Amino acid sequence: MGVEALTPAVLPVRLRALLEDQLPDWIAPHWWSSVDEMHELAPLAEIGWFDQHEKPPVLRALDLAKNLRWLNSNYAGVDWMPLRELDARGVTVTCGSGLTSTAVAEFAVMGMLTVAKNYRAVVRAQDRHEWLQRAPGTRELAGSRALILGAGAIGQAIARMLRGFEVEVVAVSRSSGQDWRSQLGTFDWIVLAVPGTAETRGMIGAAEIAAMKPEAVLANFARADVIDQDALIAALEERRIEAALLDLTDPEPLPSENKLWTLENAHITMHLSGIPTKASLKSAAERFIRNCGHFRRMETLQAEVDLRKGY
Amino acid sequence: MGVEALTPAVLPVRLRALLEDQLPDWIAPHWWSSVDEMHELAPLAEIGWFDQHEKPPVLRALDLAKNLRWLNSNYAGVDWMPLRELDARGVTVTCGSGLTSTAVAEFAVMGMLTVAKNYRAVVRAQDRHEWLQRAPGTRELAGSRALILGAGAIGQAIARMLRGFEVEVVAVSRSSGQDWRSQLGTFDWIVLAVPGTAETRGMIGAAEIAAMKPEAVLANFARADVIDQDALIAALEERRIEAALLDLTDPEPLPSENKLWTLENAHITMHLSGIPTKASLKSAAERFIRNCGHFRRMETLQAEVDLRKGY
Repeated sequence: MGVEALTPAVLPVRLRALLEDQLPDWIAPHWWSSVDEMHELAPLAEIGWFDQHEKPPVLRALDLAKNLRWLNSNYAGVDWMPLRELDARGVTVTCGSGLTSTAVAEFAVMGMLTVAKNYRAVVRAQDRHEWLQRAPGTRELAGSRALILGAGAIGQAIARMLRGFEVEVVAVSRSSGQDWRSQLGTFDWIVLAVPGTAETRGMIGAAEIAAMKPEAVLANFARADVIDQDALIAALEERRIEAALLDLTDPEPLPSENKLWTLENAHITMHLSGIPTKASLKSAAERFIRNCGHFRRMETLQAEVDLRKGY
Repeated sequence: MGVEALTPAVLPVRLRALLEDQLPDWIAPHWWSSVDEMHELAPLAEIGWFDQHEKPPVLRALDLAKNLRWLNSNYAGVDWMPLRELDARGVTVTCGSGLTSTAVAEFAVMGMLTVAKNYRAVVRAQDRHEWLQRAPGTRELAGSRALILGAGAIGQAIARMLRGFEVEVVAVSRSSGQDWRSQLGTFDWIVLAVPGTAETRGMIGAAEIAAMKPEAVLANFARADVIDQDALIAALEERRIEAALLDLTDPEPLPSENKLWTLENAHITMHLSGIPTKASLKSAAERFIRNCGHFRRMETLQAEVDLRKGY
């Protein structure tokens, strides 16, 4: 490398085993193992990876990282970051888009199946050591119709899986301009897999819910604010739709006294769908290494966020 | 029909709405709504449909039905019937093979997903109104390997669904002679979907379980006696395999004091997988009507049981 300075990268130690041997020699890695260490090292970072379960410490690291040129994150949604400010600072941002899409899609289809068969009643009977004589749910996925809003990696994976169940899938991308609203009453399943943006906020409000059929199940694997949660709670209380499968809620965590917990037709899955699996962490490390090459050659990075659009 | 006598058929009244308008005019239907009525009408029956949740009343009806020429049943497995005796009496038997295969397969794949994600822990947390911070299970179906024993309608449907999840599926039919035993240690999922016959009894014993890898999940949607249940319980207690997903147990119903209920890695689904759905009852009625035509023309019936083989 001659006299050229190394590029300092501040990286999470939990990914060290997956990253260290693969890092190119122009990078000087600094590994953080706690929030304090992350904040201490942040000012060095030209490349930063500051993922934390709690978001305020990440925002603080972004403030401290005055030399930052590239921020990498495993979060698929980065709408909570100061994207315009990062844009103004000239920081490139890459996100976890697609990394956990398989995990999320598997979780979504599992959720749909458990609603169809009312598997919660089976679990509760297991816990009572009681042999149920009648199936608590006898709905079939086969022959049903599903609307999937959002045709990104998650929506596509859900569509592929559902087709294996002989579900008739209509997948709508944001940009297609397809008129899905007028067809809402024809679907057994409405699955939300859109990104969190200004356009998708409140996309499913009282009018959309009213247009659904009584047997409809609304499943949200996008962002909590895509649904008007008060309108949904009212519909669930009056049983105007059959059920809601909510991986996202407002707020998160949902306080134990929140009404959603008490509705038998609300299935709350606690934002667990996208929790990194062994497989997804390996993919994240591999993508980061590939992106180091792109960054060095000043090429577009994989999963680079359009900082003006927000995804 | 001139002077030709009508053929008496003794049929369950719960299917009357689906059958009545479609029955050919050479059939004289008699509808039963209780076990007593079924037994009262059985002696008339040249065609009989005697399905009951309890099996002894069905066997009694078969004794009483001295004129029986064709017995129809929605049960996929009819190994509990006196098949050799029925053969000697010249009775044709049709079973429910394939009718509930979609329902069973959906239930099986749901079960696999709930084991992979440990969905029971999510349900229990829901019931406590508690927001889980960590995913209780992060296994992915994608990239895993599944062995499906039995390539009938259920096995085929499970294979199709699992391929949508990018599972590497090896499906083995009884007749293929494939050596699956030597490969047992390579599978994440071993799914049983074989018919209940003398050959499949005890097919999965202590040796087969010992050959499985520690992460293996054994799922039984075939017959309880395909597995050596004592050997399985021992393996689950010692955590030599990860879990068992058992739709069938010995005995059924499983008494509340049975040890299987107490094993956290045993998932008991109470023979609920094949409970008729609206969709499957409709298919059953349609198939019965088609079979009336085959019976009249003395053709082979759809889902006709080979009374010597037992399926």
